[in-house]
Amino acid sequence: MTEFIPPGSRFVALPSPFPMKRGGALHGARVAYETWGRLDPAAGNAILIVTGLSPDAHAAAHGDDPSPGWWEAMVGPGRPIDTDRWFVVCVNSLGSCKGSTGPASADPATGAPYRLAFPDLSIEDVADAAAHVVRALGIAQLACVIGNSMGGMTALSLLARHPGLARTHVNICGAARALPFSIAIRSLQREAIRLDPMWNGGDYSDAAYPESGMRMARKLGVITYRSALEWDGRFGRVRLESDRRDDEDPFGLEFEVESYLEGHARRFVRRFDPNCYLYLSRSMDWFDIGDHCGGDTDAGLAALQVERALSIGVHTDILFPLQQQRQIADGLRAGGVDAQFLPLESPQGHDAFLVDIARFGPALRGFLDALAR
Amino acid sequence: MTEFIPPGSRFVALPSPFPMKRGGALHGARVAYETWGRLDPAAGNAILIVTGLSPDAHAAAHGDDPSPGWWEAMVGPGRPIDTDRWFVVCVNSLGSCKGSTGPASADPATGAPYRLAFPDLSIEDVADAAAHVVRALGIAQLACVIGNSMGGMTALSLLARHPGLARTHVNICGAARALPFSIAIRSLQREAIRLDPMWNGGDYSDAAYPESGMRMARKLGVITYRSALEWDGRFGRVRLESDRRDDEDPFGLEFEVESYLEGHARRFVRRFDPNCYLYLSRSMDWFDIGDHCGGDTDAGLAALQVERALSIGVHTDILFPLQQQRQIADGLRAGGVDAQFLPLESPQGHDAFLVDIARFGPALRGFLDALAR
Repeated sequence: MTEFIPPGSRFVALPSPFPMKRGGALHGARVAYETWGRLDPAAGNAILIVTGLSPDAHAAAHGDDPSPGWWEAMVGPGRPIDTDRWFVVCVNSLGSCKGSTGPASADPATGAPYRLAFPDLSIEDVADAAAHVVRALGIAQLACVIGNSMGGMTALSLLARHPGLARTHVNICGAARALPFSIAIRSLQREAIRLDPMWNGGDYSDAAYPESGMRMARKLGVITYRSALEWDGRFGRVRLESDRRDDEDPFGLEFEVESYLEGHARRFVRRFDPNCYLYLSRSMDWFDIGDHCGGDTDAGLAALQVERALSIGVHTDILFPLQQQRQIADGLRAGGVDAQFLPLESPQGHDAFLVDIARFGPALRGFLDALAR
Repeated sequence: MTEFIPPGSRFVALPSPFPMKRGGALHGARVAYETWGRLDPAAGNAILIVTGLSPDAHAAAHGDDPSPGWWEAMVGPGRPIDTDRWFVVCVNSLGSCKGSTGPASADPATGAPYRLAFPDLSIEDVADAAAHVVRALGIAQLACVIGNSMGGMTALSLLARHPGLARTHVNICGAARALPFSIAIRSLQREAIRLDPMWNGGDYSDAAYPESGMRMARKLGVITYRSALEWDGRFGRVRLESDRRDDEDPFGLEFEVESYLEGHARRFVRRFDPNCYLYLSRSMDWFDIGDHCGGDTDAGLAALQVERALSIGVHTDILFPLQQQRQIADGLRAGGVDAQFLPLESPQGHDAFLVDIARFGPALRGFLDALAR
């Protein structure tokens, strides 16, 4: 059981007990975060970033950790989220293994890792924990909350549960509720982990680790995070060089795309805790902003109050398809928000926001520039 | 090791030895087939159906087997493929476990199942075996060869390797080559089977069977055979009734879509041999009609000679996307074939041809009617 805590992390203790939406409570829990830029005296220039399933809070390099972050090209001085102007906070999701309390953390009641004794995790809990960090930093109102992928759900939940905490909102490749295709994919990822005999009901160790299951889950993730279109251009039907193939095994790695998936999976598996993966994955299935409004998703969106919002998606996203980002903008607008829907022509699929800075950068910069004026 | 042979099967012995494209040969091999209707005296009214990965040759009910077939609504008297007019032959693919020789069949050299001693299987071998059946039935030229999904590849290969054997061609949700997204999905399905400890290097039995791996592979298949759009309308976020759920397990079946996948998987796993699945799956990855023309897929298509062709696809197909059916029609047309591309608005994804008879039926009927005139 390993947590993977970036060296520049800071921590905010959550209220103890910290009640969880589906029941139970955490004691002595904490949230890891990192910051960039300076909070102005009126605390009016703060931006919160909430992340997808796997990232930590290290979105970009800073003095305490100069290594590049997962959104390095987007966050920094002069970059689209300009830290010369904005005070940027990124939090690691509650339930993760990258500094915030989650299933891999020690349960203070026993001193041993929670594992499956961790209470059910909801997106709402992740949002409440993030909101607590914001207030603990002395910020009464965020200039903007930005959420990517799962973070798009977290951000919507934060708006619903903490009215007034954010003035504006940018939702990136997000969704107001989980749809059956995405639930099916995640269900299969969880099954891959749980069927691995090394998972052992959640009771594994670094030495006896469900590596096969995690590798399968990650490969399926990567397949759905990218797009068929991009891969046609990138890999086509190119074969591995013969010295990287086992020609005796007709089912071994042969095509470049197979090797690419294998490499991605190998880099991931020992860097994320399997039980945390299960909890965060299931939290997305359960999410529907309409839970706040009797199951009516559009009504749930229309109840959210911000001045302005931007919902960005890409047409090649199969996991959070474009109509979900349109639904967010339409729903917010129905509630009186000045909300814009921005479909981008990125070929990279769901993960485009991580790599297609040429398209996502100007969109974010434009929204934030207008906000500053 | 079980083969699943429909009771109305007939068999054609293949030449012995039967050489395989990638090396090796089969001895004493056979192909299972079924027929409907009557061959006219000139043997000019024959239609061949080549199938996707998993179907047997029992496309529809007939006197020797009145149980409904996998394309029951499409094949029969007065149906779109009208057996009052056409003599219809459907073959079980070489390499399958439904009557034709494959990895689950006995190797005459040992008397034991081939398992992984079966030679590498190519789409070209499947096509050669099907062509042999056609000739063995006294048919010098088919009026039409119809191929669905993998069968679309088989049909193209048959046209390339047996010029003149078919007058016309209908390609349904097919492809002229495998693309990296589909290769990635299939690679992951094979990995799920091969990682199951019960697979045991291909040496399993009915009592010790890789059930988990096959279930995962099938679930991933079903996810990619259907469409997110259809599932939104069909399942939405509906939960199972509480008596069908284990509320103590946050990762157990909870949503209808999870239960649907589980049911599909359970019905499949004991009805298809895992090694046969691996061989047929890999044969699709390897296929490129351009192999006949130095790797140029379009040139491979342009070299095919039929009088007329129809390539049908659906816009919700993520496994064999619509541009692949367009490529087939364009490529054939470039070679002088009167080829039509027909995109259909079916919401059901890749498997639409099995269920959306309202759209596929008239398309097939129209093509075949014109042929008969």
